[in-house]
Amino acid sequence: MTDNQVVVVPEDLCQELVSRTDAFAAVEQVFAAMGRGDARNFPVVREAIGHAEALFGFKSGFDKAGMALGLKAGGFWPGNADRGLTNHQSTVFLFDPDTGRLKALVAGNYLTAVRTAAASSVSIRHLARDDAKVLGMVGAGHQAQFQLRAAVEQRSFEKVVAWNPHPDMLPKLEAVATELGLPFEAVSQQELGAQADVIITITSAFEPLLMLDWIKPGTHIACMGTDTKGKQEVDPELVAGARVFTDEVAQSVQLGETQHAVAQGLLDEGAISPIGKVINGDHPGRQGDDEITLFDGTGVGLQDLAVAATAAALAAKQGRAQTVSL
Amino acid sequence: MTDNQVVVVPEDLCQELVSRTDAFAAVEQVFAAMGRGDARNFPVVREAIGHAEALFGFKSGFDKAGMALGLKAGGFWPGNADRGLTNHQSTVFLFDPDTGRLKALVAGNYLTAVRTAAASSVSIRHLARDDAKVLGMVGAGHQAQFQLRAAVEQRSFEKVVAWNPHPDMLPKLEAVATELGLPFEAVSQQELGAQADVIITITSAFEPLLMLDWIKPGTHIACMGTDTKGKQEVDPELVAGARVFTDEVAQSVQLGETQHAVAQGLLDEGAISPIGKVINGDHPGRQGDDEITLFDGTGVGLQDLAVAATAAALAAKQGRAQTVSL
Repeated sequence: MTDNQVVVVPEDLCQELVSRTDAFAAVEQVFAAMGRGDARNFPVVREAIGHAEALFGFKSGFDKAGMALGLKAGGFWPGNADRGLTNHQSTVFLFDPDTGRLKALVAGNYLTAVRTAAASSVSIRHLARDDAKVLGMVGAGHQAQFQLRAAVEQRSFEKVVAWNPHPDMLPKLEAVATELGLPFEAVSQQELGAQADVIITITSAFEPLLMLDWIKPGTHIACMGTDTKGKQEVDPELVAGARVFTDEVAQSVQLGETQHAVAQGLLDEGAISPIGKVINGDHPGRQGDDEITLFDGTGVGLQDLAVAATAAALAAKQGRAQTVSL
Repeated sequence: MTDNQVVVVPEDLCQELVSRTDAFAAVEQVFAAMGRGDARNFPVVREAIGHAEALFGFKSGFDKAGMALGLKAGGFWPGNADRGLTNHQSTVFLFDPDTGRLKALVAGNYLTAVRTAAASSVSIRHLARDDAKVLGMVGAGHQAQFQLRAAVEQRSFEKVVAWNPHPDMLPKLEAVATELGLPFEAVSQQELGAQADVIITITSAFEPLLMLDWIKPGTHIACMGTDTKGKQEVDPELVAGARVFTDEVAQSVQLGETQHAVAQGLLDEGAISPIGKVINGDHPGRQGDDEITLFDGTGVGLQDLAVAATAAALAAKQGRAQTVSL
């Protein structure tokens, strides 16, 4: 039996190795591969395990173009914070598509954050108006900071406006905006809609936080929080009134932000376009300056594989890969 | 962030650490936990990836009694043999049920073989007649050797009779019988049924290899080969004529040996009993010396987790655990 050498990339090394630029490139490339039909997500497993109130599961897939095969395993452990650990725990496993042998073991907590930020960023690059100046943030948790840092690299934003269900969270997001040299204003939801040219929603809401009437023509909205049946961030009328894009149509209508508009008959599944087709030039994307565009970022396993493959490749290239014999 | 130490147990160490006795105990215990409702398998993912003619997927679950949470990932790469690798490739990942962090990385090829052998062995211990003397083997591939070695430990067998679709495979199985001190006879399928008190089928057949009429009253049959829709090892009339047990009823009727009898209306799903209930004393098992008992071993993720947890625990106990920081 040939000895199998597995590359191991721990959390701290992932943070050192994978920049926002790297994550953006990896996610854009895999969305493009999905748009061409060269990459496919497998069915998602997600289970309440009946212990520690935990949700556990897997997102997996195969990108034939990037030759990335594997899964992200992990979930949500609400008691972790009390132990000094992150509630969301993820690990990515990459396999050799030629042999099925485990190739890399990559810590997934930081990577999940940057791949989620990269997804809204990719949507801004390809769908927002070029002259967007005001960025609206709905949500101000830990992940919102990642979304903000990635978003500001895509347009010449001059200001950040933000709203959060718990206003006491806003100062932390303001600190990031200040670090990035951007004025920051805490506003009402209506005011956010009136000012923002690009909006990112990144909450755990179960009700609409933004209504159609509040949104300016020409706005681009990236809905990043809804990843489960029942969750919701924006008014279904807003979804129906926008030109809608997503990472994966099947997942979007099942458990993403479009689930409500589709279930209510306001939006036809056929009207939702994979953003990969825009990246590939097979779909024009935004069609006019007054159109509202909406990207439903549901989060797919292929994104995780893409950034983990980047981490493993960079670790090897820079001679920083630990290996373990399996 | 607390550093996460992951235990790594490679193939060769698994072989040294996990005996047939260990595998038997682990599989019997987890079948018992399933029978009590303390352990549950999650939905199986199994996909043709569209590369290298490979099938890839995951079997996963949580055993609350044994506190084993995780998955086996892997599949079938038909071109591996030409590379000097096993066609079936598996790796088991164990997570901490309290925190969701990766706890152990365990090579799964040897463990898959011994847990599959342990399953038919558990069925023999709990369902075969005590006075069984002749063991019938249908199938003579690599896995058949594991099944044979495990089976002979359960009863005072005096002889092995065997049949294989390709008779040229039989000498390898005969060598194992000889090593175990048992006479070996290559026979026809009918003759096998006429002689055997216990039969193990372990083939990749898509048609019945044994008919009801050929089987003696009182025989115990463990059908271990059928793990996919369409596969089949024995006559549906034989399944319907036997008292039927399985590892997991839902999987058995979907892709195990009972799929055909159930689909043809010959067997009611409610007539199939989890073997865990027999182990727990909640089901009497065999009811009389003349009854044919049949165990459908479909192979569940919890078996993989159980033997992998044993491997990780033994490695730690014996101070032979490699660890890697993630």
